Amino acid sequence: MKVLFIGDIVGSIGREAVEKYLPRLKKKYGLDVVIANGENAAAGRGITKKIYQQLLQVGVDVITMGNHTWDNKDIFDFIDDADYLIRPANFSKEAPGKGMVQISKNGITLSVINLHGRVFLPPHEDPFAVADELVEEARKTSPLIFVDFHAEVTSEKIALGWHLDGRVSALVGTHTHVQTADARIYPKGTAYITDVGMTGPYDEVLGMTKESVIYKFQTNMPSRFEVPKEGRDVLSGFFVEIDDKTGKARRCERVYINEDYPFQG
Amino acid sequence: MKVLFIGDIVGSIGREAVEKYLPRLKKKYGLDVVIANGENAAAGRGITKKIYQQLLQVGVDVITMGNHTWDNKDIFDFIDDADYLIRPANFSKEAPGKGMVQISKNGITLSVINLHGRVFLPPHEDPFAVADELVEEARKTSPLIFVDFHAEVTSEKIALGWHLDGRVSALVGTHTHVQTADARIYPKGTAYITDVGMTGPYDEVLGMTKESVIYKFQTNMPSRFEVPKEGRDVLSGFFVEIDDKTGKARRCERVYINEDYPFQG
Amino acid sequence: MKVLFIGDIVGSIGREAVEKYLPRLKKKYGLDVVIANGENAAAGRGITKKIYQQLLQVGVDVITMGNHTWDNKDIFDFIDDADYLIRPANFSKEAPGKGMVQISKNGITLSVINLHGRVFLPPHEDPFAVADELVEEARKTSPLIFVDFHAEVTSEKIALGWHLDGRVSALVGTHTHVQTADARIYPKGTAYITDVGMTGPYDEVLGMTKESVIYKFQTNMPSRFEVPKEGRDVLSGFFVEIDDKTGKARRCERVYINEDYPFQG
Amino acid sequence: MKVLFIGDIVGSIGREAVEKYLPRLKKKYGLDVVIANGENAAAGRGITKKIYQQLLQVGVDVITMGNHTWDNKDIFDFIDDADYLIRPANFSKEAPGKGMVQISKNGITLSVINLHGRVFLPPHEDPFAVADELVEEARKTSPLIFVDFHAEVTSEKIALGWHLDGRVSALVGTHTHVQTADARIYPKGTAYITDVGMTGPYDEVLGMTKESVIYKFQTNMPSRFEVPKEGRDVLSGFFVEIDDKTGKARRCERVYINEDYPFQG
Ligand SMILES: [Fe+2]
Ligand SMILES: [Fe+2]
Ligand SMILES: [Fe+2]
Ligand SMILES: [Fe+2]
Ligand SMILES: [Fe+2]
Ligand SMILES: [Fe+2]
Ligand SMILES: [Fe+2]
Ligand SMILES: [Fe+2]
Repeated sequence: MKVLFIGDIVGSIGREAVEKYLPRLKKKYGLDVVIANGENAAAGRGITKKIYQQLLQVGVDVITMGNHTWDNKDIFDFIDDADYLIRPANFSKEAPGKGMVQISKNGITLSVINLHGRVFLPPHEDPFAVADELVEEARKTSPLIFVDFHAEVTSEKIALGWHLDGRVSALVGTHTHVQTADARIYPKGTAYITDVGMTGPYDEVLGMTKESVIYKFQTNMPSRFEVPKEGRDVLSGFFVEIDDKTGKARRCERVYINEDYPFQG
Repeated sequence: MKVLFIGDIVGSIGREAVEKYLPRLKKKYGLDVVIANGENAAAGRGITKKIYQQLLQVGVDVITMGNHTWDNKDIFDFIDDADYLIRPANFSKEAPGKGMVQISKNGITLSVINLHGRVFLPPHEDPFAVADELVEEARKTSPLIFVDFHAEVTSEKIALGWHLDGRVSALVGTHTHVQTADARIYPKGTAYITDVGMTGPYDEVLGMTKESVIYKFQTNMPSRFEVPKEGRDVLSGFFVEIDDKTGKARRCERVYINEDYPFQG
Repeated sequence: MKVLFIGDIVGSIGREAVEKYLPRLKKKYGLDVVIANGENAAAGRGITKKIYQQLLQVGVDVITMGNHTWDNKDIFDFIDDADYLIRPANFSKEAPGKGMVQISKNGITLSVINLHGRVFLPPHEDPFAVADELVEEARKTSPLIFVDFHAEVTSEKIALGWHLDGRVSALVGTHTHVQTADARIYPKGTAYITDVGMTGPYDEVLGMTKESVIYKFQTNMPSRFEVPKEGRDVLSGFFVEIDDKTGKARRCERVYINEDYPFQG
Repeated sequence: MKVLFIGDIVGSIGREAVEKYLPRLKKKYGLDVVIANGENAAAGRGITKKIYQQLLQVGVDVITMGNHTWDNKDIFDFIDDADYLIRPANFSKEAPGKGMVQISKNGITLSVINLHGRVFLPPHEDPFAVADELVEEARKTSPLIFVDFHAEVTSEKIALGWHLDGRVSALVGTHTHVQTADARIYPKGTAYITDVGMTGPYDEVLGMTKESVIYKFQTNMPSRFEVPKEGRDVLSGFFVEIDDKTGKARRCERVYINEDYPFQG
């Protein structure tokens, strides 16, 4: 199974970048499944039903989320019916939605799990313990498992990657909005990258207008972070080819497209 | 001027990786100056006089530091005489040492500046303001300026990069120990990468034995983080070619060497 | 000079508690000056021009602020003309407003200084250094100085209290909304209390409806914190009698009024 | 049942203050049970077997702990046999020791529960959920329950106090080392105080030499925090009288003894 994960889609520039590049990427990699982190899809803050449906329409199969899950209140109205939208599984038991979903293509089932880090972030349930549980559950159906671990610090992501090595097909980090260069396959067969990076404005700070962020750092004064609607884009992704029998990663590759690193078909 | 920056050297594996690869890198890139972050050089915690001298001997010209600057008490004894060791310039005025140094090769002078971030870190002096001051001072001598910004979060590093664009030759992030894939030259001529990554053990968590880190995350119990002395290595660096007249970056390139990404001469 | 400091006034219940008790307190203590922290006066978030004027009218002489200074955008319109409203002096130089004000009663001048802590809070300028500067400046006019240090942790407040002992008449902490029992006069003459506590709803959590706060702790889900408009009140204050010649505190006393600790005339 | 809780005992000055005042307090209040937080008993960092036994000998019945539980490695050797030492119940399931203990005096059983906060602290298990479980378990034996909630921020402690109101006899906060003035009995019968405060050196910062702490705040440089062995002391406690039948608090009173607030027999 060939899977592409697209990192945090930020605003309309991000959504348009997906529309623009996804067909070419499907062709290039012969993709079976496309997963995308959508926590910033609605103007940088959360996701709406309309955007969720739009993303499915342009070829995304599963949407994952993160700390911005609840930013757009629209989600409370549609999350229960959004079969292919998951939010971190280690959120509170009171939280609506689910943290794992299974998708089948050509008779092969892939489980997608979303988890949330806790360093410099709220004290969600233990991602290591929740991962252990869900992975065990998922493996009853199929050994093909893809994890999006939405977390701030590198240590937490690398540690969970090693912890799950051999038990999941891939673990990718999201949240920092900057792609890391450490894509690799761990010794027991888990493809890993510390952060996939983001998909949205290329010339700003994490997708927010740079002037507003610089002003914030310089003054600690309130500053309105906006996602621009015009400007150059970047698409950040991670491609993994998984063995359909064993669930082990056979190959992985960073996908990083912008004017400095143009798409190569 | 051709400059290589080597990311956080961790323990003996890191130091040996520098010894092993630096001669080949000098040859490949025709390096004029080599800068390295040495905050983890002494078994992961700080640096000693002996290690400082060793690093100079194997070809490093300037050592920068970070949050681990004072971890090894040895530094208080030699920092005043260590001409080519700098620590973050926005540390307290009470701190020994200095935050900027100038080095000349073939008649061209490069200023190297070390700064420290403040997000999820102690409230050091404002790195934006200190950067403005030092850059102005440095430019009186030469427009060639290299900044190591030791910081946790991507937003702070990207923001300072944009803020200094056109006024420094390069700004690199360090501290997260994972190389990012976003190397680029900003519109006004500053080479940039969010994090250079680390130089040390390849199969651990930030250079610390993975079992100890996983145990910490799983239990919040005390855990002794050790830097292993044996195992595979990784060298993470960032190469920049700077125009000797204008101080603008002409070219930049990630350097990432390990068994998955072998050295290519 | 007899000074009363009233801790963080929260919402209408807090403002009404001031109106209700201040006349009695003026009579009881023979007050010359009343200072109040107003960062939560407008429904828990910032202050408006109308509320600022109202507080002056009911007998408050100086208003101090804290981390909620800018929460109500109204402040940007009137802070430049609000002679007796100060915000933390160690905010950015870009911030409007001022951090110290002087007020004279019966020929005696008192300087009031507002400072902000940095532990678990944004990296404002160093409160110890800014305090040193402002105290030196204030003492040129008069040795009577009152400091409101708005900070989270006890260590930072106690440390600044000791640091300024003998140089200011009183240092009080604010921000935690709970009065501490450690009122005392330090050896060199500075009256001190770690936190004055808040003035507002008595049966909630820091003035916010308790159900919303408990839900937040239990679930880490978004929760709307509201300040109730009805219910029992608490007034928290700190009384200091200052020697007009030396500026030393002669006497200090906690003021804590609610149904469990009724006002005693 | 008459219960005294003694706040964080710091070093030898703290232990000696317990020895000095406990006999008088037992007499004054007719105490049945004495609980003390011992997380800083061994020179500020953890507890040893010797000190544990000493404290029992001078009249303490139960010792609670906090974030410093594991600071002195001695504890790993004796915690399994220390019947009357508990550590936060929401620590990891991997942690040695237990989080609740029952003690009987004159045929009446009191359960003592230790919990740990999570705001600005490691992501231990949910204290609200663990409290619910343990309280339910404890109430099978007796409605007399005393909770030490070791936490940083006021909101978390107040919220848990309200959450448990009517289900426990008393909930006290510890950790900030400064006694709060808000002792009260909540409407449904739970005695409450946000922080009991500490028992140890009176003229320092949280029990650590003030010079070292001020230097740390001023410079962000490494600083060795020591607990002095000589100097004036403070004892901070909280007295609760509990109805033996209902487990409701009938009366509560702050105990705060130092030279400014001398013991009153
Ligand atoms: Fe995020
Ligand atoms: Fe994001
Ligand atoms: Fe670092
Ligand atoms: Fe490092
Ligand atoms: Fe407040
Ligand atoms: Fe505040
Ligand atoms: Fe503690
Ligand atoms: Fe303590």
